[in-house]
Amino acid sequence: MHIVDLIAKKRDGFELTQKEIKYLIENYTKGLIPDYQMSAFLMATYFQKMNDEEATYLALAMRDSGDTIDLSSIPGVKVDKHSTGGVGDKVTLILGPLLASLGVKFAKMSGRGLGHTGGTIDKLESIPGYQVELSVENFIKQVNQIGIAIVGQSGDVAPADKKLYALRDVTATVDVIPLIASSIMSKKLASGADAIVLDVKVGHGAFMKTEEEAVKLAELMVSIGRLAGKKMTAILTGMDEPLGHKIGNGLEVYEAIETLLGRGPEDLVHVTVEIGAHLLIDSGLEKDFEQAKKRLHEALNNGKAYQKFLELVTAQGGDVKALEKKETLLSPHTVEVICEQDGYVTDINALDIGKAAMRLGAGREKKEDDVLFDVGIDLHKKIGHAVKKGDVLATLYVQKQGIDEAKQLILHAISIGSVKKDLPLIRKTIK
Amino acid sequence: MHIVDLIAKKRDGFELTQKEIKYLIENYTKGLIPDYQMSAFLMATYFQKMNDEEATYLALAMRDSGDTIDLSSIPGVKVDKHSTGGVGDKVTLILGPLLASLGVKFAKMSGRGLGHTGGTIDKLESIPGYQVELSVENFIKQVNQIGIAIVGQSGDVAPADKKLYALRDVTATVDVIPLIASSIMSKKLASGADAIVLDVKVGHGAFMKTEEEAVKLAELMVSIGRLAGKKMTAILTGMDEPLGHKIGNGLEVYEAIETLLGRGPEDLVHVTVEIGAHLLIDSGLEKDFEQAKKRLHEALNNGKAYQKFLELVTAQGGDVKALEKKETLLSPHTVEVICEQDGYVTDINALDIGKAAMRLGAGREKKEDDVLFDVGIDLHKKIGHAVKKGDVLATLYVQKQGIDEAKQLILHAISIGSVKKDLPLIRKTIK
Repeated sequence: MHIVDLIAKKRDGFELTQKEIKYLIENYTKGLIPDYQMSAFLMATYFQKMNDEEATYLALAMRDSGDTIDLSSIPGVKVDKHSTGGVGDKVTLILGPLLASLGVKFAKMSGRGLGHTGGTIDKLESIPGYQVELSVENFIKQVNQIGIAIVGQSGDVAPADKKLYALRDVTATVDVIPLIASSIMSKKLASGADAIVLDVKVGHGAFMKTEEEAVKLAELMVSIGRLAGKKMTAILTGMDEPLGHKIGNGLEVYEAIETLLGRGPEDLVHVTVEIGAHLLIDSGLEKDFEQAKKRLHEALNNGKAYQKFLELVTAQGGDVKALEKKETLLSPHTVEVICEQDGYVTDINALDIGKAAMRLGAGREKKEDDVLFDVGIDLHKKIGHAVKKGDVLATLYVQKQGIDEAKQLILHAISIGSVKKDLPLIRKTIK
Repeated sequence: MHIVDLIAKKRDGFELTQKEIKYLIENYTKGLIPDYQMSAFLMATYFQKMNDEEATYLALAMRDSGDTIDLSSIPGVKVDKHSTGGVGDKVTLILGPLLASLGVKFAKMSGRGLGHTGGTIDKLESIPGYQVELSVENFIKQVNQIGIAIVGQSGDVAPADKKLYALRDVTATVDVIPLIASSIMSKKLASGADAIVLDVKVGHGAFMKTEEEAVKLAELMVSIGRLAGKKMTAILTGMDEPLGHKIGNGLEVYEAIETLLGRGPEDLVHVTVEIGAHLLIDSGLEKDFEQAKKRLHEALNNGKAYQKFLELVTAQGGDVKALEKKETLLSPHTVEVICEQDGYVTDINALDIGKAAMRLGAGREKKEDDVLFDVGIDLHKKIGHAVKKGDVLATLYVQKQGIDEAKQLILHAISIGSVKKDLPLIRKTIK
């Protein structure tokens, strides 16, 4: 097999076999195929795409390039959830304890964030004492004991994907749906879960700007997962505005706790329960979708979900006392963003809100950067809300950096018009 | 300017500016743009092509990456000729002295061959004593004295093209007409000539397999040359069979001498005179095309062209006496290839004939290989000739290597059928 022939084969629009894709990824990971040949292959793929089988072979080859987690010693169906990335997305923090409180096995390895706000792991680290590093042995033990563990990525998961992603980033080959799908799925397939729900965000705050692209990506990821033997669901959710009200690490934990106590914002509860219902059914613990949703709402309202959250925090060394005074999660220094006109909120550019949070210190621009836990944005107004000149649009929890810049970004991000808009949150479900 | 943006711009089908192409080539030559970004750019160019302006900017940028020859101290119009590469193509050996005998300035730097047979320089080196290395100063002096010099490439001509070509070769981006055209023209534009005729070969023995591709390439090269201020002509000539009868370094010098003495094969004379007529007109020494051809035929028939050839050989240190006994150019060991059936020759696969010559030692597979000067093939039959079983199709001039393999290749290359075919040699002229 010659790499030049494989580049030419893709360039000419032919389908690559599993053997060929395996050869490509194995030898690229070993450094036997140089970057300059792989980048030519990637650009050929940009133009000629990949079909579902090729994308699956690619995801499997990248999965097999590194460590995989074996969860077979946990009885029952293990579930996982992935979001393609949105602003204010704290669903995992709520969904995990919520599902575990109903008997679902939630064994989650999560990443740190790169971009507007931290990842799930950064958010959990804003809880004093919470340990994100567990050995695989202790991770499995904890899931067997309390039904849930949320830890940082351990081991070398899909190194081929890391190497390939870095190359795509500098060769204008990021926006290729089969490559995006394979990249996400290589890591999901390494995680050992049996059932996976993908939350594919769509809108100006998301990676996929149009519903058409988002559907393609979602369908392909579902197909890859299914070809690899997983129970798969994807939902398309709007990212026309941030999810919930709070953006920033500690602020999102705060809002997650509120939600676990049955006082969450409508959109956040809606998405969490929707995803939860699919996973409850895939776990075999419920058959009817409406009944599943009802049980999830109950667990949020009767304190069971919150109790499980406290169990999780305790098991991982976190300070539960600190959570009772959860105001300590927020910086004492606040600044208000004031509305300059009357009308309805018609749009909140989530990407700009994310950037504002990053300016305040909530996110990372580079991998090495530290994040601040207690800074962020509390959006008081969302799309469809009536506003008056002088209203407080948002409260910023700040330390010293980026305050003016964040204010400008937020004012710029929030559009006010004369017509009340109502956007559907869940656009599509792909099974 | 960011290279990723330039890759994306080409990927998305936009036209690059001269500044952008200059930036790309300058920084690639310096090693500031890595191969992996350039190969992504090349693959994007494979799909999105380049227009005439972009290809011209690319040729100019590659020309400017290295040494250029200044021929301004030679009075009058300096001419050059380039062939995209055919089997048995010894036109330069005849054309140079022929034109010089009529007062045209023929200052030619030529390359060594890689492939079936040697290049012009390898062919000239089969003349005992012929020196292919001259300083630029002496090169110019000789052209001023006798109107002609044919030497090897000196200096570092278009290093960007060398680097880019090596990368294209391993990334499946060779077959891109604007890149082929820019590559050829970058070197032609560095050569200092004022008028250039391009002989674009078409057919199974040539790089361009179809007339449509060959026309595109020819038109683009003519356009690039003209945008760079040169007088340009391209002719499309068939490479459905080798040019002339003899293939191999010394054998081709032998046939060139025969042609310079007015005894050349019809096809070889036809192409040489056609190219010569364009250059005679471009030199301002003749206005009428038919009259130009007549003068060229005369110079072949009255010994003037051969006299100029002897002057050239003498000036460059070659042994003229050896040429008088030109049988010494050929190996004394010969083998005959015998016809196995009656009929007409309908096809001679030039590529296979070229490979046969290479097996005998006439060409190089790798840059470092030596070539043998006295081996090769003398094809007695050409397309349209009637043959009988037992006829000698070809005489091989051999040393020890590749004899059986060459015989097989030649028998395989020559098709014999029942219908007499007559193919036009010069397919198109592009001014």
